[in-house]
Order: sequence, then structure tokens, then C-alpha cells
Amino acid sequence: MAKNVLILPGDGIGPEIVEQAVRVLDAVNDAFHLDIAHESALVGGAAYDETGTPLPEPTLSKAKAADAILLGAVGGPKWDKLDMAVRPEKGLLGLRSNLELFSNLRPAILYPQLAAASSLKPEIVAGLDILIVRELTGGIYFGQPRGIRTLENGERQGYNTYVYSESEIRRIGRSAFEAARQRGKRVCSIDKSNVLEVTVLWKEIMEEVAKEYPDVELTHMLVDNAAMQLVRAPKQFDVMVTGNMFGDILSDAAAMLTGSIGMLPSASLNAEGRGMYEPCHGSAPDIAGKGIANPLATILSVAMMLRYSLGAKEAADAIEAAVSRVLDQGLRTSDIASEGSETVSTKAMGDAVLDAL
Amino acid sequence: MAKNVLILPGDGIGPEIVEQAVRVLDAVNDAFHLDIAHESALVGGAAYDETGTPLPEPTLSKAKAADAILLGAVGGPKWDKLDMAVRPEKGLLGLRSNLELFSNLRPAILYPQLAAASSLKPEIVAGLDILIVRELTGGIYFGQPRGIRTLENGERQGYNTYVYSESEIRRIGRSAFEAARQRGKRVCSIDKSNVLEVTVLWKEIMEEVAKEYPDVELTHMLVDNAAMQLVRAPKQFDVMVTGNMFGDILSDAAAMLTGSIGMLPSASLNAEGRGMYEPCHGSAPDIAGKGIANPLATILSVAMMLRYSLGAKEAADAIEAAVSRVLDQGLRTSDIASEGSETVSTKAMGDAVLDAL
Ligand SMILES: CC(C)[C@H](C(=O)O)[C@@H](O)C(=O)O
Ligand SMILES: CC(C)[C@H](C(=O)O)[C@@H](O)C(=O)O
Repeated sequence: MAKNVLILPGDGIGPEIVEQAVRVLDAVNDAFHLDIAHESALVGGAAYDETGTPLPEPTLSKAKAADAILLGAVGGPKWDKLDMAVRPEKGLLGLRSNLELFSNLRPAILYPQLAAASSLKPEIVAGLDILIVRELTGGIYFGQPRGIRTLENGERQGYNTYVYSESEIRRIGRSAFEAARQRGKRVCSIDKSNVLEVTVLWKEIMEEVAKEYPDVELTHMLVDNAAMQLVRAPKQFDVMVTGNMFGDILSDAAAMLTGSIGMLPSASLNAEGRGMYEPCHGSAPDIAGKGIANPLATILSVAMMLRYSLGAKEAADAIEAAVSRVLDQGLRTSDIASEGSETVSTKAMGDAVLDAL
Repeated sequence: MAKNVLILPGDGIGPEIVEQAVRVLDAVNDAFHLDIAHESALVGGAAYDETGTPLPEPTLSKAKAADAILLGAVGGPKWDKLDMAVRPEKGLLGLRSNLELFSNLRPAILYPQLAAASSLKPEIVAGLDILIVRELTGGIYFGQPRGIRTLENGERQGYNTYVYSESEIRRIGRSAFEAARQRGKRVCSIDKSNVLEVTVLWKEIMEEVAKEYPDVELTHMLVDNAAMQLVRAPKQFDVMVTGNMFGDILSDAAAMLTGSIGMLPSASLNAEGRGMYEPCHGSAPDIAGKGIANPLATILSVAMMLRYSLGAKEAADAIEAAVSRVLDQGLRTSDIASEGSETVSTKAMGDAVLDAL
């Protein structure tokens, strides 16, 4: 049966990197007879500019109907002064919550070929392979009440609500334990249970979930310590599980440990395993349109999509092997360039992956 | 006029490191005729064990009467199962809020003698000198409502409130700009204004405050990007200003960049410049009582206290110079030991600083 992929290029470097990723998707589609069809739609600032909203109705209904979604990136200074309700980010957040993509898998892997790109000492990061499982449809990102109000004394006050229910914590906990089973069988749950009540409940429910997975070890760490330990000794972790806000911060720090955030894909899955796939990096407006952005994180997101949502493991393996070969050849976009490597454009990198396939 | 310092050893390694710091305080008190008197009181788990509360009334009233407070550290696994209301951390949080110590200054400095201790490459961190200004009496740490409630469907839900008013933001903004004036004249304000309304207000008020300081440059950065930039290129920052929760996470990450969190002091000041001084590190229960903890962060906290709250700049300079000399001599506690250095105990490190004075 034909599978249906929705392509959302978005803003900034989004369209450029997605273009190369779609070429790769088309190539494996032919080579492996996958019968994947795809169409594109608007999201983020690009959608706002054309329709006045960052998540137009046609985009949302196509997203709901799709077997998987490939997203570039959203946002940029052009839309920074817009009202919160129509900012590009609301397009992304709207997709996450409407499709209930509660489980965000963010691997931080150091490619041996790129060890030099890390700002950390080689012995600290060599062989790094951690997975951050971030809750993506709850927490302070979506909590009510929220806003800016005027107090009786005339001054304004901003407020947001950090909230999690047992069932929300339980399902992301299970995601993390399932993932750990496929890996090093260790989950570290991150909280701030010495200060925040919501994370006291988080910690308690993680303990409950752990009982369902006797083969997986559960430990707990405070978020401030976790930020330190990621810098000090990141290889101590296997799977880290945390809420939306802490996950946003820690996964970006973890990605940067590798020195090559331009290489890291991510998956956002719902309860049925349908998902949205996107690079970990943002829309990089400063280099948009220059043809120098690194398309590999998006290409690797296609591989994740094939593996997790489209049941095409071999095609996924082929893409990952091709990316590895291209790195072996010494080809680098400028973000991961180092002495002795050959700096290539976004399109040339796409060409090289296609050649290697 | 006699100055009055309250000593709060606290838990874990607190008593050991504070003991050495008090010896140093006594020494400069004599040498510089400072007329400083001090007394001790209970806080944290130690206070809970003896009185049933982590912040007994005598401690709070002595703290209010003191010209400055020197704190060791609070907390430990022994008290982890206690009710939130009486946990050791509540002693610390109670002091911060009752004394209105809203401005937390956390320097992250790499001592040239300790460059090898960092997990980052030398060229990334050599000469690092950043100051994190963290709001300490507001935000989600103190926001109401908070707690764990049972929903209609029978499941429990945890919730906390992230809240800031204009005046709270303005005063911490001014702290940061004042500090920047004494340094590199650059402030980077950290927010999550693409998602959280409370930080939209934060960003707006920072812009207002910046107008009062035309000689200081203000930039803004999203918290996830800040976590990345601290790992990628920390020297780009001069002063970072942020709220209580983000400040907790980022300041620990920044401290760990130096590889020697055992070296970093901090100050928590109120509107009159009275303050509480403490090491950035925690109570390290795993090494408590072994006599191996690093007392230097606490000794350097005494220097900060002399400079900011007790008007004894020369004594502060003398302590900092003595610490530097001891490092030059190659003496190290085990947390900062490296090849060729001499590993010494907590007390021997205190002795060495006294000798160097
Ligand atoms: C663009 C923004 C809303 C988003 C987030 O904060 O979740 C991004 O930083 C991410 O991590 O995917
Ligand atoms: C002990 C804890 C409550 C405290 C905090 O979170 O503020 C500590 O981590 C700190 O940074 O001083």
C-alpha cells in the first residue's frame, strides 16, 4: 500500500536542506520500490506570510492524513515582533500537539569522522552515543493559565504553568524504557524534585514505570547536575528522559557536545508510532539562501522516518551508510569543516550522498 | 563599628569547608584590623535533625541582623524522602526569600593554573571569565499556585507557576547592567520568548533597563541556544542575566566548563548590598567527612563577602592572591588534581592559604 509523506520545508535554511533530503528519499523510494508518495505544504513563517497563520488548515489536515512528516525548520528574526499566537513556532507547536507527538527522540552521537569538530577533549566525547527522550506535548510549553496580566498596583506580570499529569508522565516514561531496551538498558530521569512539585510527581511515576521494565536500570538526576554532567562526562548516560522545557535545553547542549549539530536528526512520535522527523538544528537565518547549510541532519531524519514510521529498515540503513561514506571521503559543509577536509555546498553534499547510495 | 557575620555550615561537606574558610576570615580580620565578629547557626538538614525545621527561627533572626552570611551547602540523600516543606533546600530558599537576596552573582572563571581540569579544549576555555547574574527570589522557584492535586478523572497532576512582575525583572536587570559596567560592558539576557509569555515580558523589560545604561550593550539569546553556546564558545559572553530556573541550569553548566567547580564562589545580594556568600558546588554527601573536599570556593566566597558586603577590598585581594599562590605551588585537592600536582587534604589546603596570606 502506498505510503504518504508530507514535506514541510518551513523557513530559513529549511527549504534548501529539505530539497536535498527529498532527493535522497526519492532515490531510495525507487531503489527499494517503497511506493512512497509525497507532497509539500506551508508551515511557520512561510505559511504566515502567505496565509496569515503559521499552521494553515490544509497543512494540518494533510499532516493528520500523512504516514509521516518531514520538517525543515521554522522561525527567524523577520517574524520576531509578531504576536505570540501567530509566530512561526506556533506552527511547529501546533503540529506537535494536534498530532499528539508526545515522544521526542533526540540522539546525540559523535561521528568518529567528526571527532575534531567537538569543543570537548577527544577522550571525553569519543564514541558518544546518548539518546534524549523529551516529552513534547505537555509541560510548561502548553500549560494553562498563561499570559501577561496587569496587577492591581498597575505593573504587569507574566506567567506560565508547568504541569504534568500521571498519564502524561507514564507514556513518555514507557517511551524511554522501550528505547533503552534497544540500547544500553539504562534510563536517567531528569527532574528538579528538590524545588518543583510537578517534578516530584514525575520522579514518582518514573519509579512506577521502572517496575514494568525490570531489565532496565533507572536512576534520577537533578537538572542542574545533569547540565554539569553533560559537560563533564557525557558518556555516563545511555537514555535520558525529561520534560519539555528541560529537554529543550539539555538536548541542545547534548547535541552541541558532538560539535556537529548539523548532523543530528530527531523524531517526534505519537502513540501509534506515526511521526514527524526534523533536524535538531534550527532555521539558521544567518546562512539561509547561501547554499552552504548542512543537509545531513535532514537526510538522516529521512532515514529515521523510514525506520520508525515507514517500515523500511533497509532503505534507512542504506542512507546512513551513504552518509558515513561521504564523511569518509572527507566531504564537509562549512559547519563541520576541519583541516584537510573539502568544503562543499548544500547541493554538492546532496549529490555526494546520492552517488554513495 | 564591628561587623557581624553569620556562619551557616549546613550539611555534607559544608562544615569541613566552612571551618577552613573561617580560619582564613579570622586571619585577615586580625591582619587588617577589620573588627569582624562571627557566630554560627543551624540550617538545612542539620537544622532539621536538631529542631524539626530546616530554617529555625533563631537562624532567621540572626541572618536578618547580620552584615553578611557565609553558607557551606545544604541537602543530602538522608533527607530526600522528607516532605517538600521541611527539606534542607527549603532552609536555603527561605533565607533567600526572607532576606530578599534577589541578585545571585555566579562567576565562571578558569584559573590559568587549572586549565587542564576542564573537559573542554584549552583554546575554547583559556582565559574564560563570565558572570552569570541569576534572579534568586522569584520565578518558578517561588511561584503560586503549586502542588500536586487529584483531577476529576482520578489521576494526579503536578503543577508549578513561572511568574515574574516588571519590578522583579527591572531590579535584576539593573544588577546585571551594573555588574557589566565593571567588566566587559556586555549583557546577554536569556529567555524562551518564542514559547513562554513570562519571558516575553522579561525581554521587553530588559530592553527598557538597557536604555538607562547606554554604555552597556544588550543582546538576547534563547535558553536552548545559550546552553549550546556555553559548550561551543563560552568566551563570547561577558555577563549573562536570566531567571531563577534557567540560571540554576546555565550557571552550573558554566561552572563545569572550568572543570573546577570546587573553585567557584557566589554571592546573593539584596537591594542594600547585604548578602549571603556560598560556594557554587553542593554538599557532596559522597565525600562528606573524609577531609578531602576543596575548601577554596568557600575561601573565595569569604573574599567576595569582604569585597561586596564588608567594605574590606584589601583583605579580599589578599585572600585571592593567597589562593593563586597556593595553586602556583602545585597544591590541589583531589577534585582538581592533575599529573604532577600534589594532592592535599581540606585542612592542608586551608593551612597553605593561611601560610600564603
Ligand atoms: C522552535 C522552538 C519552539 C522549539 C522548542 O523549543 O521546542 C525548538 O527549540 C526545538 O527544540 O524543537
Ligand atoms: C539546593 C537548590 C535548592 C539550589 C537551587 O536550585 O537554587 C542549588 O541548586 C543552587 O543552585 O543554589
